[in-house]
Amino acid sequence: MTTVSKKTIIVFSGDYDRMMAAFIIANGAAAMDDEVTMFFTFWGLAALRKEQKPALPATGKSGLQKMFSGMLPKHAEKLGLSKFNFAGAGRFMMKKVMKAENVMTVSELLETAREQGIKMIACTMSMDVLGIGKEELIDGIEYAGVATYLGETDESNVNLFI
Amino acid sequence: MTTVSKKTIIVFSGDYDRMMAAFIIANGAAAMDDEVTMFFTFWGLAALRKEQKPALPATGKSGLQKMFSGMLPKHAEKLGLSKFNFAGAGRFMMKKVMKAENVMTVSELLETAREQGIKMIACTMSMDVLGIGKEELIDGIEYAGVATYLGETDESNVNLFI
Amino acid sequence: MTTVSKKTIIVFSGDYDRMMAAFIIANGAAAMDDEVTMFFTFWGLAALRKEQKPALPATGKSGLQKMFSGMLPKHAEKLGLSKFNFAGAGRFMMKKVMKAENVMTVSELLETAREQGIKMIACTMSMDVLGIGKEELIDGIEYAGVATYLGETDESNVNLFI
Repeated sequence: MTTVSKKTIIVFSGDYDRMMAAFIIANGAAAMDDEVTMFFTFWGLAALRKEQKPALPATGKSGLQKMFSGMLPKHAEKLGLSKFNFAGAGRFMMKKVMKAENVMTVSELLETAREQGIKMIACTMSMDVLGIGKEELIDGIEYAGVATYLGETDESNVNLFI
Repeated sequence: MTTVSKKTIIVFSGDYDRMMAAFIIANGAAAMDDEVTMFFTFWGLAALRKEQKPALPATGKSGLQKMFSGMLPKHAEKLGLSKFNFAGAGRFMMKKVMKAENVMTVSELLETAREQGIKMIACTMSMDVLGIGKEELIDGIEYAGVATYLGETDESNVNLFI
Repeated sequence: MTTVSKKTIIVFSGDYDRMMAAFIIANGAAAMDDEVTMFFTFWGLAALRKEQKPALPATGKSGLQKMFSGMLPKHAEKLGLSKFNFAGAGRFMMKKVMKAENVMTVSELLETAREQGIKMIACTMSMDVLGIGKEELIDGIEYAGVATYLGETDESNVNLFI
């Protein structure tokens, strides 16, 4: 094995707790000098949404696409837990414990991931299906499809689907 | 690394959206000349069900096995979404958007997987627990257990659990 | 490839069926002389809980931590299914079929994993967030964080997130 190894993570789930796991693993690997690529697809795209909605409404979305993008959480900190969410109360309470225990929120983990140079890719096919436009996602990410993801796995020894 | 690399995917989940992700990755890899093995276990077995129920009722199933196999979706296109399913309405609407955006359904993805020679294995232990007989599953698949799956991972660089 | 290969499994989910899958893969690999490390995090920690609650109440837990650890299933055999759980009825019925088909329960799979020398690690950060103390978990496990997990993946060819 070489000293620098690559890792890829597909972030499919939009659950707050799974997103935490994804970013904690990614940031941990980057801190150990591994190259890390995160590929955000389906509900996982919610983590990449801008906190501020774009001023102009997105054009070219069908009614159904508007419905899906409307249902998707508006921001990483609005994601629900996979268990015990209770309409957001569970996440609210977990975040209180996390703060007391000095555990970073998903937004803070995302910021750290950017600072560490983790490559974040938004899945363009999922964006089409869920009706999410580039203007709704944060800056500094890449846009690509499954072929790019597969290319990233070529020299990776850890490839997770979360 | 060699030019041909293997990939394995355990398809555990019976959610329509996760199944799409599994097949899109598998088909993408096969299109790039990788060998791909998909191992269908637990709720993932629903994707391999024949659209036509066998004429004769399966014999030798206990009442509980009949119950589980009765609850499991009858066909890939009847699977629910992991989020926003709303008793099938979410899947129905997502499929409408997919059609407009030229995204393949799970049935079409499965057909492509067969054409590309992807090896599809049904987990026999799960079939026993859920009371699913071979006569209920599509042709051209293999039947095996965890040892076969592990053997398939030996030369694989990507091994996902979906 | 060498004849002995390593495998790692992150056990994130607290679903009975996913836990079965994790242990069946881990035990299968150990039976084939692979080194296996299981890293239990978030809801997956429930599998490592002692059947007998410690006599003395845990001290130093905040109210919210008590709430989370109180909601988490008390024991592996109390975990729910990811589908068709129906407040435990689904798990109860699945376990009846499993017994008839000679499929091991999660507790039995866990015992086998220990006998086979599988390394089981409890994620200390998750323990803090969910308010789970070491006195609540079974003996013979290790305690560590994400850096230890990543170290375990260095020579592993199979790294799953379940």
